[in-house]
This record gives sequence, structure tokens and C-alpha cells, in this order.
Amino acid sequence: MATRKAVVLGAQSLLRSSSTSSPSIRNLHASSESKKIVGVFYKANEYASMNPNFVGCAEGALGIRDWLESQGHQYIVTDDKDSPNSELEKHIPDLHVLISTPFHPAYVTAERIKKAKNLQLLLTAGIGSDHIDLKAAAAAGLTVAEVTGSNVVSVAEDELMRILILVRNFVPGYKQVITGDWNVAAIAHRAYDLEGKTVGTVGAGRIGRLLLQRLKPFNCNLLYHDRVKMDSDLESQTGAKYEEDLDAMLPKCDIIVINMPLTEKTAGMFNKEKIAKLKKGVLIVNNARGAIMDTQAVADACSSGHIAVGMFGFHNQLQRITLGVICQIRR
Amino acid sequence: MATRKAVVLGAQSLLRSSSTSSPSIRNLHASSESKKIVGVFYKANEYASMNPNFVGCAEGALGIRDWLESQGHQYIVTDDKDSPNSELEKHIPDLHVLISTPFHPAYVTAERIKKAKNLQLLLTAGIGSDHIDLKAAAAAGLTVAEVTGSNVVSVAEDELMRILILVRNFVPGYKQVITGDWNVAAIAHRAYDLEGKTVGTVGAGRIGRLLLQRLKPFNCNLLYHDRVKMDSDLESQTGAKYEEDLDAMLPKCDIIVINMPLTEKTAGMFNKEKIAKLKKGVLIVNNARGAIMDTQAVADACSSGHIAVGMFGFHNQLQRITLGVICQIRR
Repeated sequence: MATRKAVVLGAQSLLRSSSTSSPSIRNLHASSESKKIVGVFYKANEYASMNPNFVGCAEGALGIRDWLESQGHQYIVTDDKDSPNSELEKHIPDLHVLISTPFHPAYVTAERIKKAKNLQLLLTAGIGSDHIDLKAAAAAGLTVAEVTGSNVVSVAEDELMRILILVRNFVPGYKQVITGDWNVAAIAHRAYDLEGKTVGTVGAGRIGRLLLQRLKPFNCNLLYHDRVKMDSDLESQTGAKYEEDLDAMLPKCDIIVINMPLTEKTAGMFNKEKIAKLKKGVLIVNNARGAIMDTQAVADACSSGHIAVGMFGFHNQLQRITLGVICQIRR
Repeated sequence: MATRKAVVLGAQSLLRSSSTSSPSIRNLHASSESKKIVGVFYKANEYASMNPNFVGCAEGALGIRDWLESQGHQYIVTDDKDSPNSELEKHIPDLHVLISTPFHPAYVTAERIKKAKNLQLLLTAGIGSDHIDLKAAAAAGLTVAEVTGSNVVSVAEDELMRILILVRNFVPGYKQVITGDWNVAAIAHRAYDLEGKTVGTVGAGRIGRLLLQRLKPFNCNLLYHDRVKMDSDLESQTGAKYEEDLDAMLPKCDIIVINMPLTEKTAGMFNKEKIAKLKKGVLIVNNARGAIMDTQAVADACSSGHIAVGMFGFHNQLQRITLGVICQIRR
């Protein structure tokens, strides 16, 4: 629900008239004419009607249709986005605004940008615009906007959940209950408390900080690596210790949490060499884009028992398969 | 590991000589003679050797064998406990001390107490002695001891994990990954943040308080019901609000967590009437003994959609089946 509000506000401010645009930017703000807006979202089918507040799908259309249409804009929503004959492709030549989400991204290639003569705004209803060719978008003077902060609480909560699931060895216990098995030893021999463990976050931006705050009462040893030190208030509030050198932090951690954006610099950064620096038996929670991990290196280290990993890779098929591998190893 | 230490300390203090026993109690403390001690634990089989610190099993024998034998005591460990021809049954007539755990309990009935002429101490290596006929034990002047506090952190952590798993709808997402499915809507239409939810704990003793402390940074609305109000320091530290009347608290909660001991008074307390007071769609996390819930009433309310429940029922087969039912409903 927080996401819905943020998206609406973001869209409203971006679609309102304004005269501050630089002359090199395709001028969205200065005109008040009707825009053609295309939203690309996954279809929820039977789930759409189960929750009236569930708007992040094609049926819900972010809950902004009435408002957009009342402002005189045209709003087309589809889930059909990839093929040359897709619904999205048909609208590329004359759309003004394209809205998409990381869960079902409209890939905006240099070729599509070239075709999209009217395109002014690429809006991610969420965080992360790695589905957009940012260089090509910048060269074309397009505005690329995300809803900064819209999911930070969700991700921090999800990370803490995944940490607990891995440390406490939840999944095998769940499976035993479902299958009617009852073997306490199979779970207990590697179920631990989080208390007293060393947890390191690689990246302590908006999400990393919320995670550290939520970890505080668990009485862990908290470490964080980032380009910059947090301000001392937040550091003393969370009790987290700054590690300037990532390679020095890695071997200290029982649990590593990755909170970095996917960039050219971070893609594949958790490779064989980085993994070799980790403690044997380390747990990794990656709620960042899956491509931050070198898939093969992670799979190899899982097979060898060097790491057990909880990943959240919604980015592409390959990452999802990796997650499957990892969960099986933890079985 | 914390449990191991606590158990060793508990056993040491109870087995040491002392002259403070009342004359009506079978005199364990005043004698320094060799005792016959029987430990009943589950067999870990192949898992025993996977972790040298895993001592809560028959093979690990709580890690106190060397110490007990160095003190001149006899220490017999078995997992065979229930039948009339069981290993435990053979030792009932002459054992002095019986150690057991709630996960694989040695049921101590009035009949066994009658047979156990030398029995002085019943020790639970953990919390909860509902496997012992306490009235019969009291009548026989036996000491029944638990390792108070040994698992409070573990349970509080586990509860917070289960709250997050239910609120964030983890299990269906995990299943999709394993089966190679990819349907975001099936998960997202009922996945929520914990932030902003009203969480109520029924019972705010050792565990409930640790849970409230850990919930604090999640920015929930925290409520608690107990016989007594917490001291005001702890109340302001957690921000939790006291609800003297349980029936008044129940309809306010999005999530109910049960932290009550199983007693004659609490057995089956979450019956049809109590459940009817809950919000439709409430989540229940019961890390207390399963018998606190009226199994049929819970199953019915799950089927009707009134509640979705995460339970931890290791108490008996029936409770485990209930848990299975509930998890399937959440699928």
C-alpha cells in the first residue's frame, strides 16, 4: 500500500506542468497536452480480485487509471512486452510515458528508445532500473525515475526473515511437518540462534541501515562495509562497526547480507575469489539483484559445503535456477 | 550451546551435596553416594557426528558423561522409553535420577513413580515438564526441575521468524522457486509488511518480553496480555501496551503470538469462542505447547478462512497433523 501511494505521488509530480526542464531534455513537463502512457505489469488473473488493494498487477494498473484519465491522458496497460509482435512493441512509436516494474520488466533497449520518438519518461514502479539501457536513455535525454524508498522496509524485513530461516534451519523442519516425518536431529544438528553471531552487511544504504536497526535487539556482532561510514548517531544506535576493507570483513562473518545496487562494478562481484575469503559454512542472504553473485561460483561453493545461501533472484531464469540449487543443498 | 551449559550447571547444582532438603523430600542432596542416572534422548544417528557441539541427543548425552562418571555416578542413556519392555522401563525400579527432554519425552506416569522406589530427581533438559505427572511426583516428594531460561532466546527468535514467514507469505514463494514456477501474483496478493501491524502476545513472561524487544524496531503496534503488567521501564522500552482483558485484545490484533505455559487452565484455551473474537484473516504463531489450541476449532477456522496459523506443535502426533493442515491452507 505504501508502494501504491509513492507511485501515485511520483507519477503526479512527474506528469504535472513545470518549467524547470533543461532544454536538452525531451520536454515532458512544459506541456499540458494529453499523454499516451503505457503500463507493463504482470497479470494476476484469479489473484487480482482476492485483494482490492493489490494494485501492482495489470488488472490493478497501480490504481492510477481514474486519476490519469481524469487528467485527459490515455492509459494502456498490458503484460505482453517482449516479442516483436507484443502489445508493448505496438505502442513504442507513439507512447510518451512507459511505466514498468522489476518483477515483470519492460526491457527498454537502445533500439526501442530509437523507435520511441515521443518517449519522455521511463518510470519504474519500484526500485532498480537495470531493465533500461541507461546510457541510451541518457543520450536521448529521457527522464528515468524510480520510486526511491518505496520498498526499503519490505526488503529489510525480508532479509531479517531470510537470515532467521537460514540460521534456525526452518525449511527442513517445515518439510518434515508437511510430509509427516519427525526427525528432530536432522534439523537440530545445524539449527542455531542468531544471538551472538557475526552479521555483516555489504552495503549500508537505505536498506542496510533498516536491517541493522532491526538486528540490534538480537545481540549480534554487527559489521558493515560501504564506501562511506554512517554518521556516528546511527552507528551508535545500531552498534554496528564500520569495515572499510570488504576483504577484511568477509572472513569474520557468520552471515553475509548483500545490499548493493547492481551496477557494472558490482555485477558478479561475489566470485570465486570473494567466496574463498568467507568462513566455511557461512550463510549468505542476497536480496539484491541475483547478478551480483557469480552463479557458477555460488553453486560450486554450495556443493563443496563452503557456503549455504538464501538468495532472492527474481532477475532472470538463471538466477532462479541457482536459488533452487541452493535451497536443495540446505534440505 | 547455551542449552548445554545451562543443563550442565543445572545438573551439577542439583547433584551436589546439600543439607537444605525438607524431611518430606526423598533425600537426594544429603547423600554423596553413587547415583544411577538415566538420560532419555532421541537418537541422532548420522547427524550425531556432523556437529561435535550437538549434545542434545542420545549420542551426545548432553555432554555430561565424563563429568558424571568422574563423580562416581552411573550414567545410562537410551532413546527407548515407551513400551513395557523398553530400556527405560528396565531401569525404573532402581534409578535415582531421570533426565529427559520435551522433544523426546520420557513420560513419567503415576504408575512409573510408584515403581521407582529410588527416584529422587526428574530433570527436564529444557523447558516444560508436562510429560511428568506433577501431582504424583509432588505426592512422592520428588524434585522436578527444568533449566529455566535455557531456550527463551531461541523461542523468541523462532517466533519472530514465524511471524515474518506468515506476514510476508514466504512458503508459497519458496515452493515456486523449488518447483520452477514463477507467479508473483500468487504470492504478492497476500504478502504484507510487518510494519504498522498490530501484534499481540498472550503471555509476556521471559519469552514474550524478548519477543517484544525484538519487535520494537519493526514499528508495529504492540499489545500484551498477562496476569500482571510489566514494570514500566520494560513497557516504555518496548512500547507495548498492557491489555488486562484478553477478550478485548483479541479483536485488535493482526497477529497473535501465544506465550503461555500448558497448564490445566490453558489447555484448549484457544477454542471456538476465543477464535470467534479474532479478526478475520488473523495470523497466529503458537510456539507454546500445541495443546493450548483446540485442534478441531483451529482446523475449522482455517478452512473457513477466519485464521491462517503458524503453529509449533511438537507435543504429539495430533498436533503435528494440525500443523500440516494449516500449512497446506497457507499454500
